[in-house]
Parts: sequence; C-alpha cells; structure tokens
Amino acid sequence: MHNRKAVYPGSFDPITNGHIDIIQRGLKIFDNILIAVLENPNKRPLFTTKERVKMIQEIFSDQKNVEVKSFHGLLVRFAKENNAKVVMRGLRAISDFEYEFQLALMNRKLDPEIETFFMMPNVKYSFLSSNLVKEVSMLGGCLKGLVPEAIEARLKNKTYNSYKKL
Amino acid sequence: MHNRKAVYPGSFDPITNGHIDIIQRGLKIFDNILIAVLENPNKRPLFTTKERVKMIQEIFSDQKNVEVKSFHGLLVRFAKENNAKVVMRGLRAISDFEYEFQLALMNRKLDPEIETFFMMPNVKYSFLSSNLVKEVSMLGGCLKGLVPEAIEARLKNKTYNSYKKL
Amino acid sequence: MHNRKAVYPGSFDPITNGHIDIIQRGLKIFDNILIAVLENPNKRPLFTTKERVKMIQEIFSDQKNVEVKSFHGLLVRFAKENNAKVVMRGLRAISDFEYEFQLALMNRKLDPEIETFFMMPNVKYSFLSSNLVKEVSMLGGCLKGLVPEAIEARLKNKTYNSYKKL
Amino acid sequence: MHNRKAVYPGSFDPITNGHIDIIQRGLKIFDNILIAVLENPNKRPLFTTKERVKMIQEIFSDQKNVEVKSFHGLLVRFAKENNAKVVMRGLRAISDFEYEFQLALMNRKLDPEIETFFMMPNVKYSFLSSNLVKEVSMLGGCLKGLVPEAIEARLKNKTYNSYKKL
Amino acid sequence: MHNRKAVYPGSFDPITNGHIDIIQRGLKIFDNILIAVLENPNKRPLFTTKERVKMIQEIFSDQKNVEVKSFHGLLVRFAKENNAKVVMRGLRAISDFEYEFQLALMNRKLDPEIETFFMMPNVKYSFLSSNLVKEVSMLGGCLKGLVPEAIEARLKNKTYNSYKKL
Amino acid sequence: MHNRKAVYPGSFDPITNGHIDIIQRGLKIFDNILIAVLENPNKRPLFTTKERVKMIQEIFSDQKNVEVKSFHGLLVRFAKENNAKVVMRGLRAISDFEYEFQLALMNRKLDPEIETFFMMPNVKYSFLSSNLVKEVSMLGGCLKGLVPEAIEARLKNKTYNSYKKL
Repeated sequence: MHNRKAVYPGSFDPITNGHIDIIQRGLKIFDNILIAVLENPNKRPLFTTKERVKMIQEIFSDQKNVEVKSFHGLLVRFAKENNAKVVMRGLRAISDFEYEFQLALMNRKLDPEIETFFMMPNVKYSFLSSNLVKEVSMLGGCLKGLVPEAIEARLKNKTYNSYKKL
Repeated sequence: MHNRKAVYPGSFDPITNGHIDIIQRGLKIFDNILIAVLENPNKRPLFTTKERVKMIQEIFSDQKNVEVKSFHGLLVRFAKENNAKVVMRGLRAISDFEYEFQLALMNRKLDPEIETFFMMPNVKYSFLSSNLVKEVSMLGGCLKGLVPEAIEARLKNKTYNSYKKL
Repeated sequence: MHNRKAVYPGSFDPITNGHIDIIQRGLKIFDNILIAVLENPNKRPLFTTKERVKMIQEIFSDQKNVEVKSFHGLLVRFAKENNAKVVMRGLRAISDFEYEFQLALMNRKLDPEIETFFMMPNVKYSFLSSNLVKEVSMLGGCLKGLVPEAIEARLKNKTYNSYKKL
Repeated sequence: MHNRKAVYPGSFDPITNGHIDIIQRGLKIFDNILIAVLENPNKRPLFTTKERVKMIQEIFSDQKNVEVKSFHGLLVRFAKENNAKVVMRGLRAISDFEYEFQLALMNRKLDPEIETFFMMPNVKYSFLSSNLVKEVSMLGGCLKGLVPEAIEARLKNKTYNSYKKL
Repeated sequence: MHNRKAVYPGSFDPITNGHIDIIQRGLKIFDNILIAVLENPNKRPLFTTKERVKMIQEIFSDQKNVEVKSFHGLLVRFAKENNAKVVMRGLRAISDFEYEFQLALMNRKLDPEIETFFMMPNVKYSFLSSNLVKEVSMLGGCLKGLVPEAIEARLKNKTYNSYKKL
Repeated sequence: MHNRKAVYPGSFDPITNGHIDIIQRGLKIFDNILIAVLENPNKRPLFTTKERVKMIQEIFSDQKNVEVKSFHGLLVRFAKENNAKVVMRGLRAISDFEYEFQLALMNRKLDPEIETFFMMPNVKYSFLSSNLVKEVSMLGGCLKGLVPEAIEARLKNKTYNSYKKL
C-alpha cells in the first residue's frame, strides 16, 4: 500500500490562487497534502512565518486532508520526518522549470527515496507569483481573482504600512 | 478513495531505459500504471504497434501493476474508458516541457477531470530519445545502458534490415 | 503621417480563435490589417488557399478594415506591394519566440524598412495551434471555444474525409 | 481614429543604444512615444530619476514626438493618465521574453484596455543591458557604440566615483 | 603533446557565412579543422554530397589547415579514424543548444574520449541557417552577406530549377 | 604556432566537482589552464579570495599545467596580460547559456581577439552550482560526490559558523 501524502513546499509570502489551484489538483491524487511553509532567515518575507501558516490554515480550514506546517532545514529531511515520499510542485513556465529541475535533482541526490511530482496550474494563473502580487499590492493595484479576498485585505494593510516606511 | 491508476502514453518506438525509469518512479505513487502505446497511422514507426506492445509486456511481465495497451483517438477518452484520471509524463528538458505543456493544456480543455502529472527521469537519461536510439542503432553504435538488452537485439536486427533497403 | 496598415501573415490552416484574438488586438493600433494567407506549394494544407481565404473573409465580413489576400514569395515584397511597413505576429511561447525571432531578423535583412511587431494572445489560447486543432478534430474531439463554429463544422467534415482515406 | 501614443517604460539607468534603437523603430508606427522613467525607491539606481530623465531629454531634444516623464506606481495607471493605450517593449532574448510575458499579462489583468507591443532591437545590441554597461564602465572598459557619447562620459565619471567608495 | 585537430560536422546544404565564421574562429585554437559533410541518405539535400564538399573546398582552397571530407555513420567513429579528439560546433540560440546538448551527450556516451567544444558565431549571423537560406533563395530574395558569392550563384541556379519543378 | 593557454574564470565560492570536471576536459585541448578567481568587492563571498585560490591550488597541486590567480577588472584585460586568447566556460543548462552568451558577446566587443569556448560537464553535475552547494551545506546536507572532500570539510566549518551568526 502506497504512502499517499505529498509535501507542497514554498515561501507562500503570500499564498496565491495559483498555489491553491495546484493544491486542489493535487488532492485528486494524494490522500493528504502537507503544505510546508519555508522559514528562511536570510530572506525578509512580508508576512512572518506564523502569519503565513495561519492564513493558509484559514483557507483550508474545511479540508481535513490539508495540513500546514512551517519548516527550516533540508526539505527531504522534513518530508521524511512527516512520512511523505512525494514532493509536489507547480510548473508555470520555462524559468520555473529550470529552477525546479535543479532543486528536484539536488533533492533526489540528498535522498533518492523522495520523488518530485509536477503539476500545471490553470493557465489563467500562468503569470502569477507572490512577488508580483506584493508589488502590485504596494502600488495599489486590484488583486481580485489572484489571491483569496482575506489575503488581499491583509496584503493591502501590510504593504500600505511597508510603503509608508519607505 | 482515490483512483490510483495512471496512464503513461507514448509511441515507445522503441521503449528506452528513460521510459522504464519514469514508470518505476510512477509506481511509487500509483497502484497501477497503464502504458498506452500510440497507434499513429500517419507516422511510420520502426516497430509495429503489436511489436511495441509485446516488447513492453515482456519487460514488465513480473509486475502485475503494469498493464500495456495500444490506443488511437483522443488520449483523454482512452483514459476515461480505462477508469484512469491521471496522465503521467516524463520531462527531460526545455523542449519537452513546451510540447508537454501544450498537450497537457489541450487535454485539460478536452476533459477537465483528467490531470497530467510530470516526473523527471534520472539525469543519465536526459539526452535519451527513441529517435536518437534508432539513429544510433542504424549507424551501428552501442546502446548498452540506454535500452534493455532484448530491445537492443531486436533494434539491431530491425535497423539492419531497414538500412539495407535504403 | 504614418502608414497604418499591418500585414498579418500565416498559413491559417485553419484560422483559430487565437489568430482572431491577435487581429482584434491589432485593430486597436492599426487602421487596416491585411491578413496574408501563405500559399505554400511544398506543404500540403488541409484546406486549399481559396478555402482558407474565404473562411477568413466570412469571419471578418463586417469589419471593413480587415482585408484578406493569399500570397506566395517573399513576405517583405508582398508587404511593400501592399503599402504596408509593418508585419504583425502573435507570440505564444518560447518556441514561438525563437522561430519568430529568426524570421523577423531575416525579413529585416531582406528589407530594413519593414518592421515586425509582436503581440500576445489571451492566455486561454496559449496552447492553441492550427496543427493541434486539426489533430483533435481528426480524433473527434470538441473544439468549442478554440475555433469559430463555422470553422469547426468545416473542419469536422474535412478531417472526417481525410480520416477515411487513411 | 486611433490613439497613436505609446508608453515606453524602463529604469534607463542609463539609457543604452539598444533602448534608442527600439524608440526609433517605434516611431515608424506611433505618432508619439512617451518614455516613462521608473522611480523605484527600493532599488538604488546609479543615476537619480532626475538625471535619467534629463539625459534622455537631451538625446531626443530634436524629436518633438518623443516625451520623457518619470513615474511611480502602476504602469497601466500612468499610461491611462497620459492618454496612451499602448505599452511598447523591446525583446532581446528568451529570458527577456519570459519576464516581459509575465509583466504584460499582469498589466492586461490590471487594465484590459492597455495593450503591450513588442519589438526586436538590432541584433548588434542583443547582449546589451544597462546593468552590463554599468559593470563594464566601472571596470574601465570602452562603451563606444553601446551608449551615446554623452552618456559614456557621465557614466565614467559616476562609476569612477562609486568605485572609489568601495 | 595535444591532438590539435577538430572535426566540424554538418550537412552544409549549403555552407553559410555563419559556418565560415565558426571555422575561422576555430582556427585560432586548432591546428587543423576537418570539415565533415554528412551524407544522409534519408534526407534529400538540395546539393549532392559531392557538390557540397567541392563548394567548401573552393572556399578554403588557400587554407592548408582546413580539410573537407564527406562521412556517413557515427560521428565519433569518423573522428577517431581521422585522429581527431575534438568535435567543434557553433551555437546560435537556445533551440540550437538543446539539440546540440543532446547530440554531444550521446556522442560522449558512444565514445568518452571525444569531447565537443562550442563556439558562438558573430551575432550578425544569429538568424542564419542553411534551410532559411534555401527558402529565401527559392523565393528570389537577396543573400548578399549571408553566403559567399559563388554559393549564392549556384544556389540561385539550383533553387530556380527546383522551383520550376513544383 | 597557437597560443595554447585558456583562462577559466569564475567565483569558485567554492569550487565544485562540476568545475573540476570542466577543467579536466579542457586539459585535453589546452596546454595550460589559468583558473581566474574573481575578486568581487560588491558580492559577499563565503570564502575570501585568498581561501578560494588556496583551495583550488591544493586540488591541482600535482598538475603543473594548471595555474590559479585571482583577478579583478575586465576579464579580457586579465586574459591578455596573461597571454591567453581563449576563455573557457562550462554550460550546464539553458539559463547558463543565456547569461554566458551575453557575457561572451560583451567580451568579444571589448576585445575581438579573445574567443570564448564552451564545454559541457558530466550530466551528473548538471544541477550543481556553488550557491546550491553552500545552501545544502548550511542546512546540514551531505555533499559527497559534489565537492572534493577537503572542500566539504571547510564548507561545513564555514557554513556552521555563518549559520550561528544568523
């Protein structure tokens, strides 16, 4: 009997509708998806790790088979500790592919038992990234349809504050 | 409970160690893999559909969870008829990605319930394709490690004959 | 005063909603668009040049600023003979870009006065090509939303006949 | 009657002969080009916004149909406020294309009335970027033919000073 | 003491100024370059193997360190028989790179002693290919600067004849 | 008689087995390889220039035809001062290619006498980069087979210290 749990790692700063689309597609295959929010002390995220975990938990509060945890350290170690043998990633475009390719091969080298699976989001999210979403929000653009409404509100508030500090 | 069957479509003219590597990785996730050998009346394959199906069946004769069938027509229809909701594809390089992207999006348009999953073969197969294998065989090159031994023998015999007809 | 006429060249075998989307976008900039249907005696199109021109003319019968002509020979010569200094092309993806880049640079070499402009179609057409449309039609797939209804009907009829000849 | 004004946005830190080449090509189509110099408080440009605007104004002082303004905030809002419905961008290479694709699609989402047009610079500028120009200047390399002479002089002076601060 | 001979393989149907540019650059490094003209019985070249060899020999008649031979079979075997351990290839663009990557890796698998070196042609040849040259010639376009004059004359004559046969 | 010395420039922070593989391949062609360690005062390397030079010297202590020097300023100037007319670079993937293409063309513009040659590393290093190696080391992952053992030890020590400072 197979292990049906997949880890879906990322910064999710913040989570977008593109990420959510990938997770919903993944649930067609996997029994459980563990969203792994990267704590990266070197990058300065807009939202703290806690905030990012909480926002995602709220979005998936009704889905018992979606779990959210933060992690630091090697992804393959985190996957193993959580009894997952599959890493799930979305592929939007060529540049995604190359970076994903490099990471997946390094992860395979670090632990050959962990396999990476890729899925494509809906094409309407093909231009979407957390960074672009933050930039548009900071400039006052409308994010309707690109992030959940609750995220947009927090994003506006957060970027408004960060904008004032500039 | 999820549908654990994946369709792995291709021409497999002939199957290579790269394809076999993808299938073995897929078996870590899926309960059953249905290898779907494309009958394409417009292309002229080196091996007949029957030969291609038979060669693959011999390779996986010990694995009860691998099935081989030929198909023509729309892949999404074939998947549905065989109770599979997942199409599995290998991704080697950029050019793969673009073509795969186009096909997967068209398949999603034709049937939104069928999802395409991508996996990466071992890097040592990153340059491998059935076409290159046929060309090297026709020119008398050694294919050790690139195709199963039984395939190499048949390939040599077949390309030797086709070479004489030139 | 500028020359406001653009040539939009292609095989259009058949025209798709992706092509039509590009033409409508082009009309925001250009006063007239001349759709140039390539007569290529070396390729075997599904539709004759006459049929392709007629189908496009019907689609744009209400738009006085869209003209359709067939052409053979150098595109830059055709553009000049028709008093156009601009070639308009759609860009869907990376592979498009490279081929388009090569053609546009050769055309610039052949006639430095002709400039090529590129536009992006709606992302929902990002996987669409005339070849894929023909293949799906031949296999009996639904093309709703990918080509105009009148085209779909003719395509079904044509591919049904060509399919029977196989 | 069409709106014949195009916005050509960028950091222009500094403007290069590649940018100027694109602008001259754009003037074959558009009646007016508005060069929009991005004020980005987060990046640290070598030249101030004022300096960048002034350098470009000097280069185009004889061309009445070229205007230069600085902007911050959303590009689509700036375009609308200036009665332009077209954004013009140069495409040098694949990596350009992907980034440009992403931005153009986000801009189309933010305002579907604004259309992005792409042009290719002369191939002799295909390796040229403002960042590479700054780096070469800082290291004492010759920029003849890559930037206007007046820009080269100021660049040398500026990078000489910034170099001393290291 | 190193083996200073490089093999430069290709179809050369016909040789272009881009190929010649690569050869001249290669001569800065290698003592001898052996141009290997591929005899491919499956493709239908415009010029016979004999014609292609002869045209290249005329171009390099003054350069004692450039030799021209036709070959069929495996490139690595041909290189070895001619005491060369290096294959030299030009890289124009991304699509080139992927195909070249695949061939070079297969050649390395077939004979690990043969190493492939890549060089970039002058950017002014970045859009140039033998196929595009043939197409432009057939349509009556001017090839000045893209192929040697003697080649252009023969190309015109040859494509004129082939055009009449259509 | 040819100049048989090639410069192999890079940051080498730290050198990986991928770099070493390229150097060994280069020695099949060049009499001498001069490894040029970039002193970049703007980037903050993990290892000082001195440390990087010393580590590489230890690795190649038995190979008289490999020399190591640090450099700053223009690469083409450094090459000339060291009587080298060839720059040697490894190409792993598409993204490599584009960046390398841009640098090589700029270097050709700065000094047309310096030619850049490209080689492919073993595919097993296709995902390897100094940055990824540093990241994995900092997270406690095993680098066996990716860097020489002596490098791995120093890397562990260095990243352990830098990690504690976070």
